Amino acid sequence: VSSVPGRGGAGGGAGEDSVHEVRVRISGGATYPVVVGVGILDRLPGLLQELAPAHRYVIIGDERVLEHHGTEVRRLVLDAGSTVEVLGFPPGEEHKNRGEWARLTDEMLRLGTGRDGCVLALGGGVSGDLAGFVAATYMRGIPVVQIPTSLVAMVDSSVGGKTGVDVPMGKNLVGAFHPPRFVLADAELIRTLPRSERSQGLAEALKHGAIRDRPYLERLQALAPRLLAGDEHATAGVVARSVEIKADVVSRDEREGGLRQILNFGHTLGHALEAASGYRISHGTAVGLGMILEARLGEVVGVTAPGTATHLEAAVRSAGLRVTLPAELDGGEVVAHLGSDKKARAGQPRFVLLEGLGTVHGDERPGMGWSHAVPVEEVRQVLESFQREGI
Amino acid sequence: VSSVPGRGGAGGGAGEDSVHEVRVRISGGATYPVVVGVGILDRLPGLLQELAPAHRYVIIGDERVLEHHGTEVRRLVLDAGSTVEVLGFPPGEEHKNRGEWARLTDEMLRLGTGRDGCVLALGGGVSGDLAGFVAATYMRGIPVVQIPTSLVAMVDSSVGGKTGVDVPMGKNLVGAFHPPRFVLADAELIRTLPRSERSQGLAEALKHGAIRDRPYLERLQALAPRLLAGDEHATAGVVARSVEIKADVVSRDEREGGLRQILNFGHTLGHALEAASGYRISHGTAVGLGMILEARLGEVVGVTAPGTATHLEAAVRSAGLRVTLPAELDGGEVVAHLGSDKKARAGQPRFVLLEGLGTVHGDERPGMGWSHAVPVEEVRQVLESFQREGI
Repeated sequence: VSSVPGRGGAGGGAGEDSVHEVRVRISGGATYPVVVGVGILDRLPGLLQELAPAHRYVIIGDERVLEHHGTEVRRLVLDAGSTVEVLGFPPGEEHKNRGEWARLTDEMLRLGTGRDGCVLALGGGVSGDLAGFVAATYMRGIPVVQIPTSLVAMVDSSVGGKTGVDVPMGKNLVGAFHPPRFVLADAELIRTLPRSERSQGLAEALKHGAIRDRPYLERLQALAPRLLAGDEHATAGVVARSVEIKADVVSRDEREGGLRQILNFGHTLGHALEAASGYRISHGTAVGLGMILEARLGEVVGVTAPGTATHLEAAVRSAGLRVTLPAELDGGEVVAHLGSDKKARAGQPRFVLLEGLGTVHGDERPGMGWSHAVPVEEVRQVLESFQREGI
Repeated sequence: VSSVPGRGGAGGGAGEDSVHEVRVRISGGATYPVVVGVGILDRLPGLLQELAPAHRYVIIGDERVLEHHGTEVRRLVLDAGSTVEVLGFPPGEEHKNRGEWARLTDEMLRLGTGRDGCVLALGGGVSGDLAGFVAATYMRGIPVVQIPTSLVAMVDSSVGGKTGVDVPMGKNLVGAFHPPRFVLADAELIRTLPRSERSQGLAEALKHGAIRDRPYLERLQALAPRLLAGDEHATAGVVARSVEIKADVVSRDEREGGLRQILNFGHTLGHALEAASGYRISHGTAVGLGMILEARLGEVVGVTAPGTATHLEAAVRSAGLRVTLPAELDGGEVVAHLGSDKKARAGQPRFVLLEGLGTVHGDERPGMGWSHAVPVEEVRQVLESFQREGI
């Protein structure tokens, strides 16, 4: 992990004005950089020439993001001296599906894109997953570059190589690991985001603090008003720290056999809440609630320090996220969805549990692991009590 | 590469009655075995327990293959002590598509298959590619075991990790590299094959001889009558040698950046012939013709020893494969299809060329490589002359 001085820059103190470069290790020993800063999009041509030279670049992004950033990114790619095509898809998670994947693939084929092509995934988590899966499966895999434009994509989904689409049975059930050549995260791009989307991104950042770095969690709480207001320099600092934490975890375990599981903290119940609500609860909101609930679950089974759930509730609230369960949500249905979680083994749900803020319970000894089976009845009781009385 | 004594066995001389185990190296340094023999299907439970333990096995095969072998394989998997499900799809390359891939994926989800599941690809090249791609993309990848039942799948497609489906723009244009946990090639299974399918498989075996082992090519020619008649022991010997050659190439270059390209000998023009004929010319036939034509192309550009094309024509003929181009085939259309070959760079077709029988022209120095651009006009002339006058 290294920081290099930024070019020029728009003022601001406390070292926030530098460009951070975090390296992620992938299986086989190679690494790729995540470059984080403010106003650094003009580094794109140089990075492409150095790390992803190609005969043709195909920018894939949702149509709303393309409206804001498509022209500029296209111009920058042309500066790299190659041909470039732009393919859009309608915004929204409901378009992250096999049909759009097939259509984008066929468009690329029609354009005559060969194995010497390269995909640029421009946008939020949906673009990264969908365009990444197109690249992963195009002629058995061509390079992809991630250019996240949402906070959640910057702090989380653009890093780590997960790509995929949703299917009727659930989210992200079809996909591939396909690490990018590099990630370019320019915090300036979040200016066009609504405040609620910044909240969504903060949920994943809070998770990084909760599992690995208590001071970072507390800093996030303190910075929340600036972050929600869209302060680019505060945001770049947060993205850099979150990416450091995620990169460290993913570099040790690319494919989720071991340590990578801890990134699922808040997500086992989070996914079940999303699914049981028919996806009316958004992902970040569900992860916020999931963290509170899984902390309480850990307290109940005697693994997590008492008070952890209360502290997390305050942190989640500071990010502008909801901290209560909808009254109409059916606890039985939430529990039913736990069985189809990708972590489930032999049909039993497993949870990542904290020891306390900043520390996960578990270790690398065989048989110990990082996720823990909890009886479904305990889960149901924690859910129902939270729904009735809160934390 | 090692050979271990077989269990029991149905007689036969010249050491053909052993079990051959060839190891293929994949990126990251791990290996998987290809186990070749006659009547060795009963090794399946032991191999599964050792190399692919799973909570649930899903056998995916085309319906015709399942009729012949489904019950026995299912019983053997039950012997491994796990639950097992069987999913069929209609036979034929036209079902190796995204629709069947999605349907099979959704069936597996409906069965509740988790990440601790394992796919068994049972059948010919279509099963291996389709079931392999289902496994490659199921929850971002679960293990797959290849149990080839056709000669072409045994000598070629089950080894090397290529998986994928066809799309309207062409064959195998969508897919992933997903090496199996092991390959179990029981030559006894080819008994149910029609003679014409054995010919198809021999095309790839001849290719292995042509690029790496002239004595093997000559042995194939001599053995052809026994091989076409379905002699299991002769077949097992051929499968073992072909797998050795392919494993050696693939182990040095898993993803086709370098040496692996030589496996495409005969395939650049072969694929174009298939496509230009609307797939009325089958793959093995097209590869046979492609080898003769690419040998002649090499002779014309001064790279390949004179007489190579004539020798290859005799070898292809001995395998029961056609050695003339259909009169109605349009040379211009064949050439047009060359531009969309996956090896094409900057739109120009590239060919693997022989120096002579058993040796490919090229080397590993940067810029030299294993494939060579040939002007489209030369290709057209070779095609037209062959169509008019033969070799």
